[in-house]
Amino acid sequence: MSIDLPSTSTCTPLAAWAAAARPSALQAMLSVSARPEILSFALGLPAPELFPIADLARAATAVLSDPMALQYSPPIARLKDHVCALMAARSVSCTPAQVFLTAGAQQGMSLLTRLLLEPHSRVIVETLTYTGFRQVLEPFAPEIVEVPTSADEGIDTDALARVLAHGPRPALIYAMSHGHNPLGISMPAEKRARLVELAAHYGVPVIEDDAYGFLQYGDAAAAPLRALDGRWVCYVGSFSKILAPGLRQGWLVVPESWMAALSIAKESSDINTRTFNQLVLTTYLETGLLPGHVDMLRREYRSRRDAMLHALRLHLPEGARWRTPTAGLFVWIELESRVCTDELLRLALEREHVAFLPGRAFSASGAEGAHCMRLNFSRLPVHDIEEGIRRLGRAVNDAPRRARD
Amino acid sequence: MSIDLPSTSTCTPLAAWAAAARPSALQAMLSVSARPEILSFALGLPAPELFPIADLARAATAVLSDPMALQYSPPIARLKDHVCALMAARSVSCTPAQVFLTAGAQQGMSLLTRLLLEPHSRVIVETLTYTGFRQVLEPFAPEIVEVPTSADEGIDTDALARVLAHGPRPALIYAMSHGHNPLGISMPAEKRARLVELAAHYGVPVIEDDAYGFLQYGDAAAAPLRALDGRWVCYVGSFSKILAPGLRQGWLVVPESWMAALSIAKESSDINTRTFNQLVLTTYLETGLLPGHVDMLRREYRSRRDAMLHALRLHLPEGARWRTPTAGLFVWIELESRVCTDELLRLALEREHVAFLPGRAFSASGAEGAHCMRLNFSRLPVHDIEEGIRRLGRAVNDAPRRARD
Repeated sequence: MSIDLPSTSTCTPLAAWAAAARPSALQAMLSVSARPEILSFALGLPAPELFPIADLARAATAVLSDPMALQYSPPIARLKDHVCALMAARSVSCTPAQVFLTAGAQQGMSLLTRLLLEPHSRVIVETLTYTGFRQVLEPFAPEIVEVPTSADEGIDTDALARVLAHGPRPALIYAMSHGHNPLGISMPAEKRARLVELAAHYGVPVIEDDAYGFLQYGDAAAAPLRALDGRWVCYVGSFSKILAPGLRQGWLVVPESWMAALSIAKESSDINTRTFNQLVLTTYLETGLLPGHVDMLRREYRSRRDAMLHALRLHLPEGARWRTPTAGLFVWIELESRVCTDELLRLALEREHVAFLPGRAFSASGAEGAHCMRLNFSRLPVHDIEEGIRRLGRAVNDAPRRARD
Repeated sequence: MSIDLPSTSTCTPLAAWAAAARPSALQAMLSVSARPEILSFALGLPAPELFPIADLARAATAVLSDPMALQYSPPIARLKDHVCALMAARSVSCTPAQVFLTAGAQQGMSLLTRLLLEPHSRVIVETLTYTGFRQVLEPFAPEIVEVPTSADEGIDTDALARVLAHGPRPALIYAMSHGHNPLGISMPAEKRARLVELAAHYGVPVIEDDAYGFLQYGDAAAAPLRALDGRWVCYVGSFSKILAPGLRQGWLVVPESWMAALSIAKESSDINTRTFNQLVLTTYLETGLLPGHVDMLRREYRSRRDAMLHALRLHLPEGARWRTPTAGLFVWIELESRVCTDELLRLALEREHVAFLPGRAFSASGAEGAHCMRLNFSRLPVHDIEEGIRRLGRAVNDAPRRARD
């Protein structure tokens, strides 16, 4: 007989963080985005109508002619060769022995923190940064050191230099050099060089999250940090934004000497393998269609970005500021400081049926970004972007203002 | 310019466990098993020729008619309904709100330990147990308490009672009630009841790893621990052995109040979703073919088990002992105590081209099982099983014996 008590709250066996856990913003927003009446700019979703679904279906059919596609197996070596070719196109020289295949970029970061962190390690992040990275850190109860970041140029390398010069050596620095999430900007070349120089000088690994690095909208694609340094920069890549997130495929480029530890960390996370998905991806890559597909994505997302920027100019009130994103999927908007975007979101959802992520969601301490928001421009087609920004403009105009200080 | 230094060993930034990491037995054996001249009984691999590959290919084709199959999405609700139906067939009553979908059983265990453990928590395992569970524990640097286990009845519940009565409260007990890995046995009903009673009395969660529970070879399938208790037993299930490991699909049955924390732990591991694989699985389950497929697997694996037991009687020397496995994929063999199976494996691989896993690989402390080995009977067809056991018998006969004490 199964006995189900309604709650374990009087005597919870859960770890402290788990007992205090509440549903995440991502979970909540995935559900919101599924509601048909909502126009959502909230999540970093790629455009599903642009997935090369017929090509991937052909690849899946080909792969499933062999039952070994569904067996446990070592990582697919041919896929590592393809990753090296992708990296070479970004000016990174690496060998298959330095490539580790993951279930998306998120797993890559999760595995790297397992390798690099001890309980209570010191970690450097930007004041505004990807929330999923902070989640990865939680089990280690780390000491998080925030370094200021700017919506023009990313991490403040002078402030970083002061932290590194004066504090104990941190276990890692988390950085996004292209298509920063949430700021939408890329680091200038001299700042990239300075960051790598500091990491090498102080002997601190950099986790370079390059999930958006292949989606650059300028004429020439700039190289990631990993192109400057093969020892201290741990590169995290992903097929989620350039192909399809549902495949859950990503990769790391790290020193070859880390492979044994990475394999163990992955084995303990979900066994070492996702044979089927790796084979579908490999079969697709062997068609040679990916570069043309990514070019198409860049054109299409650039036009969606431009449509959003145009609509923002039309519909957002004076005092709202943003930059033109040079890479990635997001525009970062600063409203006048008397608007609280947490409150604005409630009003926008209820009255205008439009969603975004409030800036504070990206603040490590919760102290930054209260008057800011992140808008995604990749998921919705242009006419929905125009209508959504029109609605958002109305919500911003109607939003309550705090009294001036 | 990429600069690749050959090694970071003089100044490694890795956590202590990672710096000391060596390739795992599983990784090594996956490579060995791929060598065509080797007959391998080493890993818990299902038989690939029995995968319902045509049915799964049809499901994949149907699923890939909609690009949303490759988008991020919340977990597929229909799949949770199917899991509840599967659990009901094992006498477990649960609701979809208590089901959490995972990337296989291994991820389920990894997420549960994140929920239940603080650094240095106390954990109870059997003296011989699944190695993948010990890997999951490593980042927590836990205090591991070993409770004796028997190759007849599994965990010694009297010894467990003494540990619970005298020590501080542990964070969890790890148990396998059916098709124990590596011992191949199932716990008698009265021991299952006693284990659950102890867990409830002392308020200690039990992680019930039931990866093999659907593969029982007797007339009536016995119920898992979760059928006896819905509060303290956390159930871990898997489609890897009853369908195909390459899909990486498993599930947990846990209290509904744990869902928010589990979602966060999964999101930080690999985002919350594996939309495509979940949809392929759901589409397959909706054909209603799984129960018949599992019946076929039970018949086929039982006949492979019986072929292996017959061959063992023919080819293993006096002094070797084993029981008939009532569930799962393994036979546990005790050789005479003067044989070291670590050494035997080298000889078996080199001279006879046959592989197994030595018993010590399953010992939490490394102190148990030195004269034992685990043989898998599911992967190879009967004629290969007969030939492999013939070779193994020669290797055992030729193995060096230590001098008597």
